[in-house]
Amino acid sequence: MILLKKKTEFSDDEFARYWLEMHAPLAKKMPGLRRYVVNVVKRPPNREPDYHGVVELWFDDQASMKKAFSSPEGAATQKDTGAFTSGLTTMYIDEHLIT
Amino acid sequence: MILLKKKTEFSDDEFARYWLEMHAPLAKKMPGLRRYVVNVVKRPPNREPDYHGVVELWFDDQASMKKAFSSPEGAATQKDTGAFTSGLTTMYIDEHLIT
Repeated sequence: MILLKKKTEFSDDEFARYWLEMHAPLAKKMPGLRRYVVNVVKRPPNREPDYHGVVELWFDDQASMKKAFSSPEGAATQKDTGAFTSGLTTMYIDEHLIT
Repeated sequence: MILLKKKTEFSDDEFARYWLEMHAPLAKKMPGLRRYVVNVVKRPPNREPDYHGVVELWFDDQASMKKAFSSPEGAATQKDTGAFTSGLTTMYIDEHLIT
């Protein structure tokens, strides 16, 4: 899971559109990526949000994740991140579906 | 989606255990809650993580969400949050499943 700040020159719409139309098609080519969810943060009233997006990526295990990010598709995806974001906070997660 | 910081007195394990064993059973009673996922952040080497957890809650719509949080079960859930967290960052999300 990665928290994203948008590129400052982008509006909220430009950020979401770039992510969904340009970046997501690159990311979904990564080998071993089991699931990919784009969470666009809705702007709160009267303030800049802390983050503009949260991306969730699922892999079978840590080795598959490393392999995906070091593949040519992973490198292209990571390179493209700079085109629409200005900051990333990466978190590795133990997921528990409660209900 | 809510970013959580653990109560400072709690270890990572105490935080995760309280959340999963004590808090989640309260939260899942909220009327209209369609899905509830607890994401425990794995501690990065050599530093304190920015957040110790991320919770995802799905409702049919904003009205259902408001109703859930203002219900007795929602009030009990929110009251219990203070027992294991020291900070919350709430984000409202437009979710896009890409793959």
